[in-house]
Amino acid sequence: MKHVLIVGGGFVGLNAAKILGRSGKLDVTLIDRKNYHLFQPLLYQVAMAGLSPAEIAAPLRALLSGYRNVRVLQAEALSIDMETRKVVTTVGPIHYDYLVLGCGAQHTYFGNEVWEPLAPGLKTIEQATEIRRRILYAFERAECTDNTEEKMKQLTFVVVGGGTTGVELSGAIGEMSRYTFSKDFKNIDPTLTRVILVEAGDRILPGYHPDLSAKATRDLEALGVQVWTSRRVTSIDSDGVDIGKERVQAATVIWAAGIQASDINGFLGQNMDDLGRVPVRPDLSIGGHPEIFAGGDQAAFIPDGAEWALPGVAPVALQQGRHIAKNILMDMAGKPRRDFTYLDKGQMATIGRSRAVVEVGKIRFSGFFAWMTWLLIHIYFLTGFKNRLFVVLQWAGAYFTFNRGARLIVNKEWQFYAPPKKKKKEPVPSE
Amino acid sequence: MKHVLIVGGGFVGLNAAKILGRSGKLDVTLIDRKNYHLFQPLLYQVAMAGLSPAEIAAPLRALLSGYRNVRVLQAEALSIDMETRKVVTTVGPIHYDYLVLGCGAQHTYFGNEVWEPLAPGLKTIEQATEIRRRILYAFERAECTDNTEEKMKQLTFVVVGGGTTGVELSGAIGEMSRYTFSKDFKNIDPTLTRVILVEAGDRILPGYHPDLSAKATRDLEALGVQVWTSRRVTSIDSDGVDIGKERVQAATVIWAAGIQASDINGFLGQNMDDLGRVPVRPDLSIGGHPEIFAGGDQAAFIPDGAEWALPGVAPVALQQGRHIAKNILMDMAGKPRRDFTYLDKGQMATIGRSRAVVEVGKIRFSGFFAWMTWLLIHIYFLTGFKNRLFVVLQWAGAYFTFNRGARLIVNKEWQFYAPPKKKKKEPVPSE
Repeated sequence: MKHVLIVGGGFVGLNAAKILGRSGKLDVTLIDRKNYHLFQPLLYQVAMAGLSPAEIAAPLRALLSGYRNVRVLQAEALSIDMETRKVVTTVGPIHYDYLVLGCGAQHTYFGNEVWEPLAPGLKTIEQATEIRRRILYAFERAECTDNTEEKMKQLTFVVVGGGTTGVELSGAIGEMSRYTFSKDFKNIDPTLTRVILVEAGDRILPGYHPDLSAKATRDLEALGVQVWTSRRVTSIDSDGVDIGKERVQAATVIWAAGIQASDINGFLGQNMDDLGRVPVRPDLSIGGHPEIFAGGDQAAFIPDGAEWALPGVAPVALQQGRHIAKNILMDMAGKPRRDFTYLDKGQMATIGRSRAVVEVGKIRFSGFFAWMTWLLIHIYFLTGFKNRLFVVLQWAGAYFTFNRGARLIVNKEWQFYAPPKKKKKEPVPSE
Repeated sequence: MKHVLIVGGGFVGLNAAKILGRSGKLDVTLIDRKNYHLFQPLLYQVAMAGLSPAEIAAPLRALLSGYRNVRVLQAEALSIDMETRKVVTTVGPIHYDYLVLGCGAQHTYFGNEVWEPLAPGLKTIEQATEIRRRILYAFERAECTDNTEEKMKQLTFVVVGGGTTGVELSGAIGEMSRYTFSKDFKNIDPTLTRVILVEAGDRILPGYHPDLSAKATRDLEALGVQVWTSRRVTSIDSDGVDIGKERVQAATVIWAAGIQASDINGFLGQNMDDLGRVPVRPDLSIGGHPEIFAGGDQAAFIPDGAEWALPGVAPVALQQGRHIAKNILMDMAGKPRRDFTYLDKGQMATIGRSRAVVEVGKIRFSGFFAWMTWLLIHIYFLTGFKNRLFVVLQWAGAYFTFNRGARLIVNKEWQFYAPPKKKKKEPVPSE
């Protein structure tokens, strides 16, 4: 049997593996650095203490255990040799007859990679829990200090980038400070929290209709978020950021600005676009290599007659993963491959507890009904029945109580115990 | 108003704070290194991927937000000066009129502290997720290798210490390998997993009646756990352990053997017992200092006529926390303090999915009914209604499906992104 190697267990890889697994006609190996499939559209909820990591992630091995011809390995792809048809991985080289690439994207700081530790992005569970730790800990530090300047710095949050992630994060911080924390602190007034959303373009949510950008701006402002458009972050340090010529003292900065496709594209011998994405042909294979497919954030698919490639959103990746698998099965059946066409499921962003903006083709709406739509669609596509049930319950609880269950400050590194030792009594330093 | 400083937000500190908060008669400050109260009896469930951290932890600030006279600070106590009545903390010195110490205990390696990174203990959420990572990753590595010796090493787990934690962990590993993983791996047979529980004494669960130790041993053996009593671990390295004269190749070793009370006891000028616990008087204050109280794992309380101090279990800590608060209120009311008496709530350990051993005074039982008792009692005492509901649902789901929802291998350190760089195509190393 021919061997399909799938790199990446995201929406592309998981959906391709399911269809190939169901067919039973090929041997399939799926590799991923992580042992789980992550539902990235809800990752900001982990960062905002609304959900636990396990509620938006499911083990790949369990998701695919029903297919006898699908093997899952936790491994990272290091390089591709297209001539010998091998991918070198951390567990050794793996030969392929077909290669399916769905390695996604990572943040880019546009050449300012030193900003990364100062302003983490939101692409992995580790980053989400790190952002959660930073936000919650800032409130704790503000509570501990009597220095007004330090208090204001701890209560200032800057979110860089006005796309969906930036809008969702800044709205959630605004709401959390005003409602969830309203009674929890004795020494600070959480409603004094300042949240600044910085966007280099002239409006937030640039991929949406301008009416929805304006609506989202008003909704964010109602939650106390200041929306600064046409402004660029020029410098970040541990005390704050420079936004154009203005200095903002802020303890917490979050990066939601730039995306760069996976480095693995460098092995494919193609000219990548500005976002590092590999161009794909109408059948989703790459030029000159019909045995190699790419999809999702890693690939640039320009629909017939369009000017721009499809955006890096979950429905595109999901549909491309399925289409790639179907084209491989067409090859097996000796039939011609089909061209990919994207069925637009629309786009949506949620703002705080009960508002959202939704755009499907020419239909646009916002407010509570948009939020309900957002909620139902996200839950429907969340993998695994149990997760769905739990997330519905979490949200139902959170909706009525404003409570956030996952407010744990977990250390970013595992703490080794100091060996128990008998300390001598020491004099107390004078106050 | 007099100021009560509570160090530690565990069972002692939280329960003392609630009673003092309800009375409204004193100013109370509770400090803890973490921002949450942890329900430690269920921590092994996080290590075994059955529950998420947020399901057994609740933010101290939210738990105590209803009491206007109680302030919560995330800070660590560094030293105590009993003469000036000050505790030096990471956020500065704090004066007290009454000091309540509930700092708990940590693991001890009996002088072999170098074993700590090789064989982590289970006292914190960070440690629980680290143990979860190690166990799940061992199965992943076993799946990736064709070397039989390496495979066996990855599938061998050694748990050191046959107390409640060791019994619960080894039973859960045995069950997980036999049931949860039965269909998930194509390249290994998870039922070949070898779990060894090592206990230095002549039986496991030494605090229980010998009949229950024997029953627990049989239950563990039914799950494939080998129980090695009267054996001592003499050496641990990255490839395995020496148990007496026998060498066991094992990739994963977990430490559940020794406990040492908090180092802060060194500032109290008392003679500590073998476990580093400070002796407390019948009213739970320490000798010569009626304004300082200690409880829980940090204190040694020897009941009238008894030979041994009360064990370090949750009901003791909870009752002592309440009693300390009541004695402070007695002082306020000008009434004499009362002596502490422990109302024995019994002890219990769970073994796998539906077995347990329970001992309450002279009553002993085991099996499914014991497991149901264990379940109901643990859920009843879990803090916060929402958490209780979720844990019941998780367990109901897990009971019928053997599924473990929280099977995420999350990296122990937050991974910084490598700056995106265009890699040159490299030759593939020969196999």
